[in-house]
Amino acid sequence: MKTVPFTEVTIKDRFWAPRQATNSEKTIPHELEQCRTTGRINNFAKAAGLISGNFEGIFFNDSDVHKLVEAASYTLQTHPNPAWETELDEVIDTIAKSQQKDGYLNSYFTLVEPQKRWQNLGMMHELYCAGHLFEAGVAHYQATGKQKLLDVACRFANLIDNTFGPGKRDGLPGHQGIELALVKLARVTGEARYMSLAEYFVTKRGHSPSVFEKELENPDLPGGLGAYQHHYTRDGKYEGTYSQAHLPIQEQTECVGHAVRAMYLYAGAADIAAATGDVGITNALDALWQNVEKRLYVTGGVGPSGHNEGFTQDYELPNFSAYAETCASIGLIFWAHRMFLLKGESRFVDVLETALYNGALSGISLDGTGFFYQNPLASRGGRHRHPWFGCACCPPNIARLLGSLGQYIYAQSEKDLWINLYVGGTASVKVAKDVSLKLTQETDYPWSGEVKITVDPDTPAKFTLNLRVPSWCSNFDININGESYNAKAASNGYLSIDREWHANDTVELKLDMPIEQIYAHPYVRDNLGRSALHRGPLVYCFEDVDNPDGAFETLSFVNDTAIEAMFDSELLGGITLIRGTGTVFDASDWENSLYHPKPSLKRMAVTAIPYYAWCNRGDGQMAVWIF
Amino acid sequence: MKTVPFTEVTIKDRFWAPRQATNSEKTIPHELEQCRTTGRINNFAKAAGLISGNFEGIFFNDSDVHKLVEAASYTLQTHPNPAWETELDEVIDTIAKSQQKDGYLNSYFTLVEPQKRWQNLGMMHELYCAGHLFEAGVAHYQATGKQKLLDVACRFANLIDNTFGPGKRDGLPGHQGIELALVKLARVTGEARYMSLAEYFVTKRGHSPSVFEKELENPDLPGGLGAYQHHYTRDGKYEGTYSQAHLPIQEQTECVGHAVRAMYLYAGAADIAAATGDVGITNALDALWQNVEKRLYVTGGVGPSGHNEGFTQDYELPNFSAYAETCASIGLIFWAHRMFLLKGESRFVDVLETALYNGALSGISLDGTGFFYQNPLASRGGRHRHPWFGCACCPPNIARLLGSLGQYIYAQSEKDLWINLYVGGTASVKVAKDVSLKLTQETDYPWSGEVKITVDPDTPAKFTLNLRVPSWCSNFDININGESYNAKAASNGYLSIDREWHANDTVELKLDMPIEQIYAHPYVRDNLGRSALHRGPLVYCFEDVDNPDGAFETLSFVNDTAIEAMFDSELLGGITLIRGTGTVFDASDWENSLYHPKPSLKRMAVTAIPYYAWCNRGDGQMAVWIF
Repeated sequence: MKTVPFTEVTIKDRFWAPRQATNSEKTIPHELEQCRTTGRINNFAKAAGLISGNFEGIFFNDSDVHKLVEAASYTLQTHPNPAWETELDEVIDTIAKSQQKDGYLNSYFTLVEPQKRWQNLGMMHELYCAGHLFEAGVAHYQATGKQKLLDVACRFANLIDNTFGPGKRDGLPGHQGIELALVKLARVTGEARYMSLAEYFVTKRGHSPSVFEKELENPDLPGGLGAYQHHYTRDGKYEGTYSQAHLPIQEQTECVGHAVRAMYLYAGAADIAAATGDVGITNALDALWQNVEKRLYVTGGVGPSGHNEGFTQDYELPNFSAYAETCASIGLIFWAHRMFLLKGESRFVDVLETALYNGALSGISLDGTGFFYQNPLASRGGRHRHPWFGCACCPPNIARLLGSLGQYIYAQSEKDLWINLYVGGTASVKVAKDVSLKLTQETDYPWSGEVKITVDPDTPAKFTLNLRVPSWCSNFDININGESYNAKAASNGYLSIDREWHANDTVELKLDMPIEQIYAHPYVRDNLGRSALHRGPLVYCFEDVDNPDGAFETLSFVNDTAIEAMFDSELLGGITLIRGTGTVFDASDWENSLYHPKPSLKRMAVTAIPYYAWCNRGDGQMAVWIF
Repeated sequence: MKTVPFTEVTIKDRFWAPRQATNSEKTIPHELEQCRTTGRINNFAKAAGLISGNFEGIFFNDSDVHKLVEAASYTLQTHPNPAWETELDEVIDTIAKSQQKDGYLNSYFTLVEPQKRWQNLGMMHELYCAGHLFEAGVAHYQATGKQKLLDVACRFANLIDNTFGPGKRDGLPGHQGIELALVKLARVTGEARYMSLAEYFVTKRGHSPSVFEKELENPDLPGGLGAYQHHYTRDGKYEGTYSQAHLPIQEQTECVGHAVRAMYLYAGAADIAAATGDVGITNALDALWQNVEKRLYVTGGVGPSGHNEGFTQDYELPNFSAYAETCASIGLIFWAHRMFLLKGESRFVDVLETALYNGALSGISLDGTGFFYQNPLASRGGRHRHPWFGCACCPPNIARLLGSLGQYIYAQSEKDLWINLYVGGTASVKVAKDVSLKLTQETDYPWSGEVKITVDPDTPAKFTLNLRVPSWCSNFDININGESYNAKAASNGYLSIDREWHANDTVELKLDMPIEQIYAHPYVRDNLGRSALHRGPLVYCFEDVDNPDGAFETLSFVNDTAIEAMFDSELLGGITLIRGTGTVFDASDWENSLYHPKPSLKRMAVTAIPYYAWCNRGDGQMAVWIF
């Protein structure tokens, strides 16, 4: 099973296409400017000797530029933009020029501690930055056919491969990411050594004695021992859970530590399992997936705690203090996508879709220039999206996710085709060996569950079209060429249509998309007695700006009256609102009383908006889970 | 307004009388044994030179013995018990013999640091222990007419009065209690100097420079500076809120710091306001009362935090972690009683009654030998009442409360009479100048709201009988001598019957006592969406032993079915249960899901018991506030 790459997919709808346009018109130029003004781009110029000066910012800032180059590369494919294309080429030139003769590329170490390369793999992110460089090189090559950055990436990858591995130095990234990047590099170049190196990084992790344990013994560690000890020791002893280095991957069953690192590791491990067929890794990933489903916000957020930017324990999912980093939801999308490719089951895409439409998308403002690092599920007010961060991993991450969205919509096996996401647009694929097929989706998803699919092979072809039936959908209808088609979803979650397809065959899928109340497992203490609303893939939330009738935190949704979904094209870029009836406590009851036998409940019209759209009209109160 | 003293009141009912009997038969001998075996009594013997050896235990352990002597003294009046009467006299003898020639009495300082008396008033509790000695002396005199311990108390009080005050040393108790004790001593002896000293301790507090601030400068402080600084400084500077020494009493408007200290101070201040007519103190107490009503558990618990054993902020009333010390609820009873005496309003007695029947009474097990220090409003299991504590303030405090209960039932002004608590038994009072009146209550309160009152003056007398209409009661009926009497409660909360009373007049009061659901102010975050049950003065709770149907923490009470109160004479010493219908989540829904669109709710019969009776059948889960 492989994905239909972004280069073969166009998006033409009123949900994602405008977001990709905003990505091109607002987000990418905004982030380029941020990278410029914060010295991130100049760090490369300095390392290249093009200008003089000291390294600026945090030691892993290179990665932000790499991710932004990757995002811009995808966007060249869908929404090229003369306003920044020249600058992008210049940035790539500068990055390339900063590469050292031996292939090494990291502006921090080149400028600040050139003698201390690879000495602090646990904390200093050289391999992590390298991974993002590789992903940028691959994306730029795929989008433009230009090999310059890909060559840079390969030279660096060769150096890393010559440095680390069996019979060479032991080494592992403290922050994962290079694993899945090496797999991409291997696939695009055909170089097996990159796949082997990825496998080494995935499978070496968690074996004793640990690379990190040894680094802890270095009194002259670049970056110093303090932060290292904080993250890698407990009670004075080495402890690897923070970066998932506590057990070999095959023995891991619990999602632990820093959530983004975990997601990137599991995604890379899924790539390796797919490439090698390693059953031990696949079984571990099954167990880890089972575990993440006990640690998952309803929005697709993961990692509730700011303390370790990561996981805590099953069912610990506080709302107000939810960390749920944007990058972690994006990482979950990476992992879920690869789990689908590995196992062909729609349940992984269900989680992917949830994270995409909610916990990841909430990371960016509607205007494309404000970003959440944390994505809480409730707020007492005072939350803002920010134009940038000192540690700016999230803004370019959401930009590359949006730019590369096409790749998540379709997948194919040797013969057959899968539609995973319902997104208006087209895909060009080869099916049934050599038949060129143009596939078109026309839909107003996620606002509507109606999808018209046109299957247009250049010659009649027999293959199976697998349509994902989302887990939120209990009822659906299908017409093929106007005639009712009777089918059920299989246990893998797909509805398979196996037939000979002809030019301009149409499949009309109508997914029932009711408004539903959802409840959380009773062990999720913060949600006891509460429910949330969702409609289709969208989780809804309540903001006090829509529900200003005092006592916001006492908001209850009542079930005894009509509830309706209605599209409002003027609001928040066009959204389907949910309107119903709710109650709040009447504040006048409580002026002089702490306890009240019969507090009045003021009935009122209540309005919910999609969670992703919250905090675009001021910094008021918000709640996903209400009574 | 003054109370009808415990010496003039008998209790004969099936709720309190058995508890007073248990107090005599179980609690007092159990606590005497604890005081014996932990060296508390021997500390006095050692200080008296009767035996040799070192001081044992905590420096304020004398106070536990004093409180127990006080409790036993009350009990001599109602349930004398040959099993411990002799020992009580011996204990009193030993305490008396430990008194130093100059009147000083404190076994810790006499044995351990005789040169360091009065040097650490902030932490070492000399004045607090003295106060409890005074209360014991007064109670023993009132109960038995014996003056021995009262004389000991007076000699020590004279020393303290000769030591501290205007023109003498500045001094204040770090832990209050001596204020109200001196008022008792003044009343029973007629000595004005004790009242003046009490007034000095109440009104000197919070003035700058503080006694405590000065003690902080003593490098040779008995007990050391560490604990002192912990409680009396913030960021290295003196900060008096822990013991309410931050502001003069007239300027205090917020309940702060250690809850027991606060309650004892406010109670003493109310005594002083009543004695002196100080409007500034009365106004401050009004403000403090208004504030405590934002910081009050529904059970009458105060002081939510274990950190300072005390107050935090308005509406911060967590259930699981509620500290709500037994002594603090008892202190609240002291304060509320005195606020009633000061202002003649029933709202104070409403709080007194709530604390008495719930947050204080929960402090003791049904068998009389187990004690809670903390009284949480919810438990995940594992809570126990303990036979004793290293810091054993609560066990003798609940014993003296139960022993002295008679004094809270009635009050009188020069001419008129008040019934505050409905408790079966009798009272002997003088009304209308010189008429001897015997008043009898026959009632099954708190299980029933029906009270038959017989008013039996020895000669016809005109006076007003004021019956408290509890705040939980919306409807009531009265018959006088079998005829309906039409009356409403006045704004002070009392129903006044002003008439000429004759021998054996009867008043039949029927207070409607429905089961009611009560809600908390929406700012009480833990209780959002939840309600509690009460019936009459009793707050109810749910224990998993009665509601074992799994998923205890998802317990909801449903309102669409019958709910009934039924007396079960076999259970927990005889209680009125509340039975109704509830739901819990069906655990089978949640085996593999974190979120569920339509979780099943298992309907089940649910049973609630009075909160005070919880944790008498094992250490299971409990909740007052359910959904």
